[in-house]
Amino acid sequence: MAFHSSTFELPTTAKAEMIDVTKRVRAEVKNSGVENGICTVFCGHTTGGVTINENTDPDVRTDILNALERAVPAGAKYYKHEEGNAHAHAKAVLVGFTVSVPVQQGKLMLGTWQAIYFCEFDGPRSRKLSVTVVG
Amino acid sequence: MAFHSSTFELPTTAKAEMIDVTKRVRAEVKNSGVENGICTVFCGHTTGGVTINENTDPDVRTDILNALERAVPAGAKYYKHEEGNAHAHAKAVLVGFTVSVPVQQGKLMLGTWQAIYFCEFDGPRSRKLSVTVVG
Amino acid sequence: MAFHSSTFELPTTAKAEMIDVTKRVRAEVKNSGVENGICTVFCGHTTGGVTINENTDPDVRTDILNALERAVPAGAKYYKHEEGNAHAHAKAVLVGFTVSVPVQQGKLMLGTWQAIYFCEFDGPRSRKLSVTVVG
Repeated sequence: MAFHSSTFELPTTAKAEMIDVTKRVRAEVKNSGVENGICTVFCGHTTGGVTINENTDPDVRTDILNALERAVPAGAKYYKHEEGNAHAHAKAVLVGFTVSVPVQQGKLMLGTWQAIYFCEFDGPRSRKLSVTVVG
Repeated sequence: MAFHSSTFELPTTAKAEMIDVTKRVRAEVKNSGVENGICTVFCGHTTGGVTINENTDPDVRTDILNALERAVPAGAKYYKHEEGNAHAHAKAVLVGFTVSVPVQQGKLMLGTWQAIYFCEFDGPRSRKLSVTVVG
Repeated sequence: MAFHSSTFELPTTAKAEMIDVTKRVRAEVKNSGVENGICTVFCGHTTGGVTINENTDPDVRTDILNALERAVPAGAKYYKHEEGNAHAHAKAVLVGFTVSVPVQQGKLMLGTWQAIYFCEFDGPRSRKLSVTVVG
Protein backbone atom coordinates (compact mmCIF):
# COMPACT_ATOMS: atom_id res chain seq x y z
CA MET A 1 0.00 0.00 0.00
CA ALA A 2 1.12 3.52 -0.79
CA PHE A 3 0.60 6.19 1.82
CA HIS A 4 1.27 9.90 1.54
CA SER A 5 0.52 12.65 3.99
CA SER A 6 1.30 16.32 4.03
CA THR A 7 0.11 19.56 5.55
CA PHE A 8 -0.02 23.00 4.01
CA GLU A 9 -0.37 26.45 5.52
CA LEU A 10 -3.45 28.46 4.65
CA PRO A 11 -3.60 32.03 5.89
CA THR A 12 -7.13 33.43 5.70
CA THR A 13 -7.91 37.10 5.20
CA ALA A 14 -11.58 37.64 6.02
CA LYS A 15 -14.02 36.96 8.84
CA ALA A 16 -15.81 34.44 6.64
CA GLU A 17 -14.68 33.10 3.30
CA MET A 18 -14.40 29.98 1.16
CA ILE A 19 -10.89 29.42 -0.21
CA ASP A 20 -10.33 27.12 -3.18
CA VAL A 21 -7.61 24.60 -2.25
CA THR A 22 -8.14 22.22 -5.16
CA LYS A 23 -4.80 22.91 -6.84
CA ARG A 24 -2.89 22.20 -3.67
CA VAL A 25 -4.81 18.99 -3.07
CA ARG A 26 -4.19 17.86 -6.67
CA ALA A 27 -0.48 18.59 -6.21
CA GLU A 28 -0.39 16.30 -3.15
CA VAL A 29 -2.17 13.55 -5.05
CA LYS A 30 0.51 13.84 -7.73
CA ASN A 31 3.27 13.88 -5.09
CA SER A 32 1.83 10.76 -3.51
CA GLY A 33 2.35 8.66 -6.62
CA VAL A 34 -0.89 6.83 -5.75
CA GLU A 35 -2.65 5.52 -8.84
CA ASN A 36 -5.87 4.30 -7.27
CA GLY A 37 -7.17 5.06 -3.80
CA ILE A 38 -8.75 7.72 -1.65
CA CYS A 39 -7.64 11.26 -0.90
CA THR A 40 -8.81 12.67 2.43
CA VAL A 41 -8.56 16.38 3.14
CA PHE A 42 -8.71 17.02 6.87
CA CYS A 43 -9.20 20.29 8.70
CA GLY A 44 -7.68 20.36 12.18
CA HIS A 45 -9.66 23.38 13.39
CA THR A 46 -12.96 23.96 15.18
CA THR A 47 -14.18 27.22 13.64
CA GLY A 48 -13.47 26.33 10.01
CA GLY A 49 -14.36 23.33 7.87
CA VAL A 50 -13.79 21.68 4.51
CA THR A 51 -16.37 21.15 1.78
CA ILE A 52 -16.88 20.82 -1.95
CA ASN A 53 -18.81 23.12 -4.23
CA GLU A 54 -18.98 24.98 -7.50
CA ASN A 55 -15.69 26.09 -9.01
CA THR A 56 -17.00 28.83 -11.28
CA ASP A 57 -19.41 31.55 -10.11
CA PRO A 58 -18.05 33.22 -6.92
CA ASP A 59 -21.62 34.26 -6.08
CA VAL A 60 -22.24 30.64 -5.07
CA ARG A 61 -19.69 30.97 -2.27
CA THR A 62 -21.26 34.23 -1.10
CA ASP A 63 -24.69 32.63 -1.14
CA ILE A 64 -23.51 29.57 0.79
CA LEU A 65 -21.86 31.74 3.46
CA ASN A 66 -25.00 33.85 3.72
CA ALA A 67 -27.24 30.78 3.91
CA LEU A 68 -25.13 29.44 6.78
CA GLU A 69 -25.30 32.83 8.50
CA ARG A 70 -29.11 32.86 8.22
CA ALA A 71 -29.34 29.33 9.60
CA VAL A 72 -26.85 30.04 12.41
CA PRO A 73 -26.64 33.81 13.00
CA ALA A 74 -23.39 35.21 14.41
CA GLY A 75 -25.23 37.59 16.69
CA ALA A 76 -27.85 35.30 18.25
CA LYS A 77 -28.48 36.13 21.90
CA TYR A 78 -28.42 32.64 23.36
CA TYR A 79 -24.72 31.80 22.92
CA LYS A 80 -22.84 31.15 26.17
CA HIS A 81 -19.31 30.71 24.81
CA GLU A 82 -17.38 33.79 25.87
CA GLU A 83 -15.09 34.04 22.86
CA GLY A 84 -18.02 35.30 20.77
CA ASN A 85 -17.46 32.77 17.99
CA ALA A 86 -19.99 30.10 18.94
CA HIS A 87 -21.70 30.52 15.57
CA ALA A 88 -18.39 29.68 13.86
CA HIS A 89 -18.11 26.42 15.83
CA ALA A 90 -21.65 25.49 14.83
CA LYS A 91 -21.13 26.37 11.17
CA ALA A 92 -17.99 24.23 11.08
CA VAL A 93 -19.99 21.30 12.46
CA LEU A 94 -22.57 21.79 9.70
CA VAL A 95 -19.95 21.94 6.94
CA GLY A 96 -17.76 19.17 8.35
CA PHE A 97 -14.03 18.61 8.75
CA THR A 98 -13.25 15.95 6.17
CA VAL A 99 -13.70 15.48 2.45
CA SER A 100 -12.78 12.13 0.86
CA VAL A 101 -12.41 12.00 -2.91
CA PRO A 102 -11.56 8.94 -5.03
CA VAL A 103 -8.24 8.87 -6.88
CA GLN A 104 -8.11 6.99 -10.20
CA GLN A 105 -5.15 6.72 -12.58
CA GLY A 106 -3.32 9.21 -10.42
CA LYS A 107 -6.07 11.82 -10.66
CA LEU A 108 -8.46 13.32 -8.14
CA MET A 109 -11.92 12.33 -9.38
CA LEU A 110 -13.78 15.55 -8.62
CA GLY A 111 -16.90 16.24 -10.66
CA THR A 112 -16.75 18.72 -13.54
CA TRP A 113 -18.01 21.66 -11.49
CA GLN A 114 -16.43 20.74 -8.18
CA ALA A 115 -13.70 22.45 -6.22
CA ILE A 116 -12.54 21.75 -2.66
CA TYR A 117 -12.92 24.69 -0.28
CA PHE A 118 -11.65 25.55 3.14
CA CYS A 119 -14.45 27.44 4.89
CA GLU A 120 -13.30 30.13 7.29
CA PHE A 121 -15.93 31.19 9.82
CA ASP A 122 -13.79 33.09 12.33
CA GLY A 123 -10.91 34.66 10.44
CA PRO A 124 -8.54 36.00 9.63
CA ARG A 125 -6.34 33.26 11.05
CA SER A 126 -3.40 31.03 10.19
CA ARG A 127 -4.95 27.73 9.16
CA LYS A 128 -3.54 24.38 8.10
CA LEU A 129 -5.02 21.59 6.03
CA SER A 130 -3.73 18.06 5.84
CA VAL A 131 -3.99 15.84 2.80
CA THR A 132 -3.72 12.06 3.13
CA VAL A 133 -3.66 9.75 0.14
CA VAL A 134 -4.02 6.01 0.67
CA GLY A 135 -3.99 3.55 -2.22
CA MET B 1 -4.37 -4.14 -0.78
CA ALA B 2 -7.57 -4.59 -2.72
CA PHE B 3 -9.04 -1.60 -4.47
CA HIS B 4 -12.32 -1.36 -6.34
CA SER B 5 -13.99 1.64 -7.88
CA SER B 6 -17.07 2.07 -9.97
CA THR B 7 -19.64 4.65 -10.92
CA PHE B 8 -23.34 4.25 -11.49
CA GLU B 9 -25.91 6.44 -13.20
CA LEU B 10 -28.71 7.85 -11.12
CA PRO B 11 -31.46 9.74 -12.93
CA THR B 12 -33.54 11.83 -10.52
CA THR B 13 -37.19 12.66 -11.12
CA ALA B 14 -38.15 15.46 -8.72
CA LYS B 15 -36.96 18.92 -7.72
CA ALA B 16 -35.96 17.56 -4.30
CA GLU B 17 -35.84 13.94 -3.23
CA MET B 18 -33.82 11.36 -1.31
CA ILE B 19 -33.10 8.21 -3.33
CA ASP B 20 -32.09 4.99 -1.59
CA VAL B 21 -28.89 3.70 -3.21
CA THR B 22 -28.01 1.10 -0.58
CA LYS B 23 -28.57 -1.93 -2.81
CA ARG B 24 -26.28 -0.56 -5.48
CA VAL B 25 -23.58 0.25 -2.94
CA ARG B 26 -23.86 -3.24 -1.42
CA ALA B 27 -23.51 -4.73 -4.90
CA GLU B 28 -20.25 -2.84 -5.43
CA VAL B 29 -18.92 -4.00 -2.08
CA LYS B 30 -19.66 -7.55 -3.20
CA ASN B 31 -18.05 -6.92 -6.61
CA SER B 32 -14.96 -5.55 -4.90
CA GLY B 33 -14.17 -8.81 -3.15
CA VAL B 34 -12.91 -6.75 -0.19
CA GLU B 35 -13.33 -8.58 3.10
CA ASN B 36 -12.32 -5.82 5.51
CA GLY B 37 -11.93 -2.14 4.73
CA ILE B 38 -13.80 1.05 4.02
CA CYS B 39 -16.44 1.82 1.41
CA THR B 40 -16.63 5.46 0.35
CA VAL B 41 -19.62 6.73 -1.62
CA PHE B 42 -18.77 9.97 -3.38
CA CYS B 43 -21.09 12.45 -5.07
CA GLY B 44 -19.44 14.44 -7.85
CA HIS B 45 -22.09 17.17 -7.95
CA THR B 46 -22.62 20.55 -6.29
CA THR B 47 -26.41 20.70 -5.90
CA GLY B 48 -26.87 17.19 -4.53
CA GLY B 49 -25.24 15.27 -1.71
CA VAL B 50 -24.96 11.87 -0.05
CA THR B 51 -26.12 10.96 3.43
CA ILE B 52 -27.39 8.16 5.62
CA ASN B 53 -30.76 7.89 7.28
CA GLU B 54 -33.74 5.75 8.14
CA ASN B 55 -34.62 2.98 5.71
CA THR B 56 -38.24 2.49 6.72
CA ASP B 57 -40.74 5.34 7.09
CA PRO B 58 -40.68 7.54 3.94
CA ASP B 59 -42.04 10.42 6.05
CA VAL B 60 -38.56 10.76 7.52
CA ARG B 61 -37.20 11.70 4.09
CA THR B 62 -39.99 14.22 3.58
CA ASP B 63 -39.32 15.72 7.00
CA ILE B 64 -35.57 15.95 6.38
CA LEU B 65 -36.10 17.69 3.03
CA ASN B 66 -38.57 20.09 4.64
CA ALA B 67 -36.23 20.77 7.56
CA LEU B 68 -33.45 21.64 5.11
CA GLU B 69 -35.84 23.87 3.17
CA ARG B 70 -36.82 25.73 6.36
CA ALA B 71 -33.16 26.19 7.32
CA VAL B 72 -32.14 27.26 3.78
CA PRO B 73 -35.23 28.47 1.90
CA ALA B 74 -35.23 28.14 -1.90
CA GLY B 75 -36.86 31.52 -2.35
CA ALA B 76 -34.77 33.69 -0.01
CA LYS B 77 -34.22 37.17 -1.45
CA TYR B 78 -30.50 37.55 -0.78
CA TYR B 79 -29.12 34.97 -3.24
CA LYS B 80 -26.87 36.42 -5.94
CA HIS B 81 -26.23 33.30 -8.02
CA GLU B 82 -28.15 33.79 -11.26
CA GLU B 83 -29.07 30.17 -11.88
CA GLY B 84 -31.65 30.36 -9.08
CA ASN B 85 -30.36 27.25 -7.31
CA ALA B 86 -28.15 28.79 -4.64
CA HIS B 87 -30.23 27.08 -1.94
CA ALA B 88 -29.42 23.72 -3.54
CA HIS B 89 -25.69 24.43 -3.37
CA ALA B 90 -26.01 25.36 0.31
CA LYS B 91 -28.12 22.31 1.14
CA ALA B 92 -25.57 20.04 -0.53
CA VAL B 93 -22.83 21.60 1.63
CA LEU B 94 -24.90 20.89 4.75
CA VAL B 95 -25.55 17.26 3.78
CA GLY B 96 -22.05 16.60 2.45
CA PHE B 97 -20.59 14.74 -0.51
CA THR B 98 -19.06 11.66 1.02
CA VAL B 99 -20.21 8.79 3.19
CA SER B 100 -17.65 6.25 4.46
CA VAL B 101 -18.92 2.98 5.86
CA PRO B 102 -16.83 0.12 7.31
CA VAL B 103 -16.76 -3.21 5.46
CA GLN B 104 -16.36 -6.37 7.54
CA GLN B 105 -16.39 -9.96 6.31
CA GLY B 106 -17.39 -8.68 2.91
CA LYS B 107 -20.43 -6.80 4.22
CA LEU B 108 -21.30 -3.12 4.46
CA MET B 109 -21.66 -2.44 8.19
CA LEU B 110 -24.64 -0.11 8.09
CA GLY B 111 -26.73 0.11 11.26
CA THR B 112 -30.03 -1.74 11.44
CA TRP B 113 -32.14 1.26 10.42
CA GLN B 114 -29.67 2.86 8.04
CA ALA B 115 -29.84 3.32 4.30
CA ILE B 116 -27.56 5.42 2.07
CA TYR B 117 -29.33 8.19 0.18
CA PHE B 118 -28.49 10.46 -2.69
CA CYS B 119 -30.09 13.82 -1.92
CA GLU B 120 -31.31 15.73 -4.95
CA PHE B 121 -31.83 19.45 -4.35
CA ASP B 122 -32.07 20.75 -7.93
CA GLY B 123 -33.60 18.01 -10.05
CA PRO B 124 -34.60 16.34 -12.11
CA ARG B 125 -31.11 15.68 -13.45
CA SER B 126 -28.83 12.88 -14.60
CA ARG B 127 -26.63 12.16 -11.60
CA LYS B 128 -23.74 9.78 -10.98
CA LEU B 129 -22.37 8.31 -7.78
CA SER B 130 -19.01 6.66 -7.36
CA VAL B 131 -18.29 3.84 -4.94
CA THR B 132 -14.72 3.12 -3.84
CA VAL B 133 -13.81 0.15 -1.67
CA VAL B 134 -10.33 -0.04 -0.15
CA GLY B 135 -9.27 -2.93 2.05
CA MET C 1 -1.95 -3.24 4.73
CA ALA C 2 -2.97 -3.19 8.35
CA PHE C 3 -6.66 -3.15 9.14
CA HIS C 4 -8.30 -2.81 12.52
CA SER C 5 -11.95 -2.48 13.36
CA SER C 6 -13.83 -2.38 16.61
CA THR C 7 -17.08 -1.19 18.10
CA PHE C 8 -17.74 0.30 21.51
CA GLU C 9 -20.91 0.79 23.49
CA LEU C 10 -21.98 4.32 24.28
CA PRO C 11 -24.97 4.77 26.56
CA THR C 12 -26.35 8.31 26.39
CA THR C 13 -28.12 10.01 29.25
CA ALA C 14 -29.87 13.10 27.89
CA LYS C 15 -32.32 14.03 25.14
CA ALA C 16 -29.54 15.94 23.38
CA GLU C 17 -25.85 15.93 24.21
CA MET C 18 -22.36 15.81 22.75
CA ILE C 19 -20.19 13.08 24.26
CA ASP C 20 -16.40 13.23 23.94
CA VAL C 21 -15.20 9.88 22.56
CA THR C 22 -11.65 10.95 21.71
CA LYS C 23 -9.95 8.77 24.33
CA ARG C 24 -11.71 5.67 23.11
CA VAL C 25 -10.85 6.44 19.50
CA ARG C 26 -7.19 7.04 20.41
CA ALA C 27 -7.16 3.70 22.25
CA GLU C 28 -8.36 1.92 19.10
CA VAL C 29 -5.70 3.64 17.01
CA LYS C 30 -3.13 2.34 19.48
CA ASN C 31 -4.69 -1.14 19.42
CA SER C 32 -4.56 -1.15 15.65
CA GLY C 33 -0.79 -0.87 15.52
CA VAL C 34 -1.21 1.28 12.40
CA GLU C 35 1.64 3.77 12.00
CA ASN C 36 0.34 5.76 9.05
CA GLY C 37 -3.16 5.74 7.64
CA ILE C 38 -6.71 6.90 8.22
CA CYS C 39 -9.00 6.40 11.19
CA THR C 40 -12.72 6.48 10.41
CA VAL C 41 -15.27 6.79 13.19
CA PHE C 42 -18.65 5.62 12.00
CA CYS C 43 -22.04 6.07 13.66
CA GLY C 44 -24.57 3.37 12.77
CA HIS C 45 -27.62 5.34 13.90
CA THR C 46 -30.10 7.72 12.29
CA THR C 47 -30.90 10.14 15.12
CA GLY C 48 -27.32 10.71 16.27
CA GLY C 49 -24.14 11.68 14.44
CA VAL C 50 -20.40 12.12 14.81
CA THR C 51 -18.48 15.36 14.57
CA ILE C 52 -15.39 17.19 15.74
CA ASN C 53 -15.21 20.31 17.84
CA GLU C 54 -13.62 22.16 20.72
CA ASN C 55 -12.28 20.05 23.56
CA THR C 56 -12.23 22.72 26.26
CA ASP C 57 -15.18 25.02 27.01
CA PRO C 58 -18.37 22.95 27.50
CA ASP C 59 -20.41 26.03 26.55
CA VAL C 60 -19.37 25.39 22.95
CA ARG C 61 -21.28 22.10 22.97
CA THR C 62 -24.32 23.77 24.49
CA ASP C 63 -24.18 26.50 21.85
CA ILE C 64 -23.81 24.01 19.00
CA LEU C 65 -26.79 21.98 20.22
CA ASN C 66 -28.84 25.16 20.58
CA ALA C 67 -27.80 26.39 17.14
CA LEU C 68 -28.94 23.09 15.63
CA GLU C 69 -32.21 23.34 17.56
CA ARG C 70 -32.83 26.85 16.21
CA ALA C 71 -32.08 25.74 12.65
CA VAL C 72 -34.19 22.56 12.96
CA PRO C 73 -36.69 22.99 15.82
CA ALA C 74 -37.87 19.85 17.61
CA GLY C 75 -41.44 21.14 17.82
CA ALA C 76 -42.01 22.35 14.25
CA LYS C 77 -45.57 21.66 13.08
CA TYR C 78 -44.83 20.28 9.63
CA TYR C 79 -43.20 16.97 10.59
CA LYS C 80 -45.07 13.88 9.39
CA HIS C 81 -42.96 11.16 11.02
CA GLU C 82 -45.09 9.71 13.78
CA GLU C 83 -42.29 8.89 16.22
CA GLY C 84 -41.91 12.59 17.00
CA ASN C 85 -38.16 12.63 16.39
CA ALA C 86 -38.03 13.93 12.82
CA HIS C 87 -35.88 16.85 13.99
CA ALA C 88 -33.32 14.36 15.35
CA HIS C 89 -33.08 12.61 11.97
CA ALA C 90 -32.54 15.97 10.26
CA LYS C 91 -29.94 17.12 12.78
CA ALA C 92 -28.01 13.87 12.34
CA VAL C 93 -27.96 14.48 8.57
CA LEU C 94 -26.56 17.96 9.15
CA VAL C 95 -23.85 16.72 11.52
CA GLY C 96 -23.00 13.61 9.52
CA PHE C 97 -22.20 10.00 10.37
CA THR C 98 -18.50 9.72 9.67
CA VAL C 99 -15.34 11.46 10.75
CA SER C 100 -12.02 10.52 9.10
CA VAL C 101 -8.81 11.62 10.80
CA PRO C 102 -5.25 11.01 9.60
CA VAL C 103 -2.98 8.74 11.64
CA GLN C 104 0.75 9.48 11.65
CA GLN C 105 3.46 7.72 13.63
CA GLY C 106 0.76 5.82 15.42
CA LYS C 107 -1.08 8.94 16.55
CA LEU C 108 -4.45 10.42 15.72
CA MET C 109 -3.66 13.77 14.10
CA LEU C 110 -6.43 15.84 15.64
CA GLY C 111 -5.84 19.59 15.87
CA THR C 112 -4.83 21.13 19.18
CA TRP C 113 -8.35 22.11 20.17
CA GLN C 114 -10.19 19.21 18.60
CA ALA C 115 -12.11 16.38 20.19
CA ILE C 116 -14.37 13.80 18.51
CA TYR C 117 -17.98 13.86 19.69
CA PHE C 118 -20.95 11.60 19.38
CA CYS C 119 -23.99 13.83 19.03
CA GLU C 120 -27.15 12.47 20.61
CA PHE C 121 -30.35 14.07 19.32
CA ASP C 122 -32.96 11.59 20.56
CA GLY C 123 -31.70 10.11 23.80
CA PRO C 124 -31.23 8.62 26.17
CA ARG C 125 -30.41 5.50 24.18
CA SER C 126 -27.86 2.69 23.93
CA ARG C 127 -25.56 3.76 21.12
CA LYS C 128 -22.56 2.16 19.43
CA LEU C 129 -19.68 3.67 17.51
CA SER C 130 -17.32 1.81 15.24
CA VAL C 131 -13.70 2.73 14.69
CA THR C 132 -11.85 1.51 11.61
CA VAL C 133 -8.15 2.11 11.08
CA VAL C 134 -6.61 1.40 7.68
CA GLY C 135 -2.93 1.94 6.95
